[in-house]
Amino acid sequence: SKTYRIAVIPGDGIGKETTPEGLRVLDAAARRFGFALKLDHYDWSCETWKRTGAMMPPDGLDRLRDSDSIFLGAVGWPGVPDHVSLWGLLIPIRRGFDQYVNLRPCRLMPGAKTPLAGRTEADIDFYVVRENTEGEYSSSGGRQFEGTDREFVSQLTVFTRTGVDRILKYAFELARTRNRKHVTSATKSNGITFTMPYWDERFAAMAANYPDIGTAQYHIDILCAHFVQHPDWFDVVVGSNLFGDILSDLGPAVAGSIGIAPSANINPERAHPSMFEPVHGSAPDIAGKFICNPIGQIWSGAMMLEHLGEVEAGRAIVTAIETLLREGGPRTRDMGGQASTQDVGRALAEIV
Amino acid sequence: SKTYRIAVIPGDGIGKETTPEGLRVLDAAARRFGFALKLDHYDWSCETWKRTGAMMPPDGLDRLRDSDSIFLGAVGWPGVPDHVSLWGLLIPIRRGFDQYVNLRPCRLMPGAKTPLAGRTEADIDFYVVRENTEGEYSSSGGRQFEGTDREFVSQLTVFTRTGVDRILKYAFELARTRNRKHVTSATKSNGITFTMPYWDERFAAMAANYPDIGTAQYHIDILCAHFVQHPDWFDVVVGSNLFGDILSDLGPAVAGSIGIAPSANINPERAHPSMFEPVHGSAPDIAGKFICNPIGQIWSGAMMLEHLGEVEAGRAIVTAIETLLREGGPRTRDMGGQASTQDVGRALAEIV
Ligand SMILES: CC(C)[C@H](C(=O)O)[C@@H](O)C(=O)O
Ligand SMILES: CC(C)[C@H](C(=O)O)[C@@H](O)C(=O)O
Repeated sequence: SKTYRIAVIPGDGIGKETTPEGLRVLDAAARRFGFALKLDHYDWSCETWKRTGAMMPPDGLDRLRDSDSIFLGAVGWPGVPDHVSLWGLLIPIRRGFDQYVNLRPCRLMPGAKTPLAGRTEADIDFYVVRENTEGEYSSSGGRQFEGTDREFVSQLTVFTRTGVDRILKYAFELARTRNRKHVTSATKSNGITFTMPYWDERFAAMAANYPDIGTAQYHIDILCAHFVQHPDWFDVVVGSNLFGDILSDLGPAVAGSIGIAPSANINPERAHPSMFEPVHGSAPDIAGKFICNPIGQIWSGAMMLEHLGEVEAGRAIVTAIETLLREGGPRTRDMGGQASTQDVGRALAEIV
Repeated sequence: SKTYRIAVIPGDGIGKETTPEGLRVLDAAARRFGFALKLDHYDWSCETWKRTGAMMPPDGLDRLRDSDSIFLGAVGWPGVPDHVSLWGLLIPIRRGFDQYVNLRPCRLMPGAKTPLAGRTEADIDFYVVRENTEGEYSSSGGRQFEGTDREFVSQLTVFTRTGVDRILKYAFELARTRNRKHVTSATKSNGITFTMPYWDERFAAMAANYPDIGTAQYHIDILCAHFVQHPDWFDVVVGSNLFGDILSDLGPAVAGSIGIAPSANINPERAHPSMFEPVHGSAPDIAGKFICNPIGQIWSGAMMLEHLGEVEAGRAIVTAIETLLREGGPRTRDMGGQASTQDVGRALAEIV
């Protein structure tokens, strides 16, 4: 039977509570579907930084390199600046392993409370495909005339042909696997007039290779409005690093799933390990109490299994989540229940 | 009695149908509150461009310069590229007259249908204050290695101290006039690490001058989610050119008012005329039929009067809109009625 080597990084806050539950359910799925997981645990976190001055050791990426996947909890803690925590762990992994696809399902799950009126499960079921390595999150920029009235800061957004084409291709390929076969592109070409029209051009060129896939494109401002007014319009939505970031929080928010949404940071060529993490953060306000919801982590585990080729096992986990939510299984406070983090993990491990 | 000189630019599409109704209601308000409007009409539009090769004459800004305000309909038409239409008329006016505040009320109006469940008028009532002259909408950028695999595009975002401080100041001053006295700032400092942390710094510095005003700050991704989940959290929300653009479409969308929302492009120092325009565009699909909703234009007229100092008259127009909507007055198709554009304009002129 197959064995997958998984690097586990719980990280900070509730990440330390959700990853064990993710592993519990992954383990149940492995037993049921006949594969094995070999786990390497890494305690890299803001605590590591306080102790050692670095979020991970200098050879951190090398240690992860031979993993089949990385299973991450959450990164960040009050008092630790983002440029230390995120730029010392999360972003280096995304970029170092060229995980250029950030994939996030936006689904109205059974029993979840969407803030929208009159929407049901069939209305909200799409993916946001976000470019994850370039664009607005750039490393060129700076400050000039510091401390004077002329002071200014600048930052250079860069879209490369390679970077744009490969994310668009991923979006179209994903759409091919779906029923609706439709891709929506997010830009802002009427305001941001050098980078965004280029994305539009490459989108049109890529679409020409996929005559079987329907397309639409919107400026980001009205697209955000449409997410709220017409979430049923969308199947696969593709955008730049920043626009994908915005849409992949807004999408789960309209679906009422922001506390349980999963995400995948994927290197589709499998030249490097991909990384799977819930959309939520380390939630310092509730950390340490084992009252947090582990579903985002568990669902991220399902995405990991699908990526590893254990498609059936991944689907079984998603089905288990649906069953638990539909049939009123144990739920944590954020979903109106009283269950602990472990109660939910155990219940899901049982159903899977 | 006072006379205000107003430059009227209906522009394209439904702009030509909404501006007359805006003027009709302004005229009624002028008569009732005892002031006069002297109108200068300009037919600058995409048609002008087709005829003359320019959206406005070379001395266009000079002709507008002595106006007390500019009353704009909508700009843009299919087949005319944005860099021609928007960058030939709308953006040059915003920048040429240093209209550095883009102000947009987000209000759940009586009888309007919000897509959110269980929200009432008291829950959604805030302003988005958008920086309107710099930031992400920049004029430096370009394309390199064209046509090769190394091809890339770039664009430089610039925030100046002057630009950031003055928009923040406007937001805090606005908050002082409101009951809740609260300002929320939108950034993305964890991802966009040169420009955004600077905005945060200046926000903190400005907040120190306003101890009477409460503050909050969020990354744009989670802020968009909060707009949907907790619109009642917000009073005044301030953001960069791009973030303000996104939030000022999303805000009216959650309020169910995107078809009727107004906006003001303001030069607070009154060194130059300010410009008032509805948020909606030229709507080519329904143009020419007089079925479009003129409320966004009329509400923009109310903002114009407030800016001119005719505060009571401006409020009377907003009250008239509320009355018409609450009491089931004539409404256009987008609001489920059968009335024409003029029917709504006439009804509002009567109530004012
Ligand atoms: C038309 C476009 C350039 C404009 C903008 O983004 O400023 C519009 O979306 C707006 O918000 O007024
Ligand atoms: C923490 C932050 C840098 C990150 C991002 O913007 O990429 C987060 O918002 C996410 O979406 O994963």
